[in-house]
Amino acid sequence: MGEDPDFPMRMAELSATSGVPVPTVKLYLREGLLPPGERTSPNQARYGPAHVRRLLLVRALREVANLPVAAIKVILGALDDPAGTLHDALGAAQEAITPAPGPAPGPAAARAAATVDRLSAEQGWSGCASPARSAVEGALAAIYALGADNGGSDALLSAYAGAAQQVARADLAGVAAEPDADQVLTTAVVWTVLGDAVLAGLRRMAQQEASARVFGG
Amino acid sequence: MGEDPDFPMRMAELSATSGVPVPTVKLYLREGLLPPGERTSPNQARYGPAHVRRLLLVRALREVANLPVAAIKVILGALDDPAGTLHDALGAAQEAITPAPGPAPGPAAARAAATVDRLSAEQGWSGCASPARSAVEGALAAIYALGADNGGSDALLSAYAGAAQQVARADLAGVAAEPDADQVLTTAVVWTVLGDAVLAGLRRMAQQEASARVFGG
Repeated sequence: MGEDPDFPMRMAELSATSGVPVPTVKLYLREGLLPPGERTSPNQARYGPAHVRRLLLVRALREVANLPVAAIKVILGALDDPAGTLHDALGAAQEAITPAPGPAPGPAAARAAATVDRLSAEQGWSGCASPARSAVEGALAAIYALGADNGGSDALLSAYAGAAQQVARADLAGVAAEPDADQVLTTAVVWTVLGDAVLAGLRRMAQQEASARVFGG
Repeated sequence: MGEDPDFPMRMAELSATSGVPVPTVKLYLREGLLPPGERTSPNQARYGPAHVRRLLLVRALREVANLPVAAIKVILGALDDPAGTLHDALGAAQEAITPAPGPAPGPAAARAAATVDRLSAEQGWSGCASPARSAVEGALAAIYALGADNGGSDALLSAYAGAAQQVARADLAGVAAEPDADQVLTTAVVWTVLGDAVLAGLRRMAQQEASARVFGG
């Protein structure tokens, strides 16, 4: 049987090329996170470069971003079958990756909503209802309910919103600079999800430095 | 039997005051995330304001920050038994809440390490090894391995580091402004953990606005 040039790799080569162990590859196949290879016999399949890319993406979403399997499936669906404008497709992918518990109704929730309105006005955002807005309100309401909003909380949150604005503009410039049109949505999803981890980690590095200066022995 | 003024509440009142449902309170007690109440009979216990605060904190760490039970126990341990300077205690709490997978060795990992060195130099950070640094390197290596670092990636990451610096300074100013010395560490932990969720959500709100402008139909 001749070799299909689009699917040059056996499972062992797919694993070696991607750096993902064979048992993990098999798990992703079983979970439907990786499409099946091209079958060459009842017990053998071959894989191509698209499998390597998908494998790396799935592993990053699972192991670095810690997303549940269900959320990863929604993201992969949005990537494989994008609808409408790029803005629509980005929005669908973003909804899939933003957990939006939202606060339970109460005084803390009302105060959180007022804060998000204020920050939106400061930054010139529409402040429309969205999973992102619910996520912010949920986290803020938890902070308020805990009484952890010390004197500096209003100025602190304005600093957060300003930093978010700055990062989002850089994010969009990065996505717009992606030279491969087929990769724009993947690039946007990767940076949205893994960018959270990068930003959170950098914030903690910066906190360590600032804490050493302010509170160090 | 007289009522202990430090423990005025039965389970039902604890639930009503905190807004946490009774089955959830019982779960946290079983998991050791909430200390037992003051026993008043073999089948009854009473709870105090410290239980309400702890309950709200545990729920926020679990349901808003999605931390696993083991990580929450480490955080609560650091809060209950802080050691050394406030900087040391903050560091211990931060280690507990920062997942640090770190990248697998390889070209992407080496490039990620070089990037973090560059960003640290730009911001004047020591760049010492830490869970935060490992987390940044792990996420960056995943981005590099995916080939998602388009033309703008260096400038983009400088924008991330600048934003992180800005937020961390505001964070520390907020912690330093906490008027209740007993609450400083709790405030720091709450803002470190829930601040990630606030910042990530605000970033997505800002992305939506920027995406509508750049890619909207």
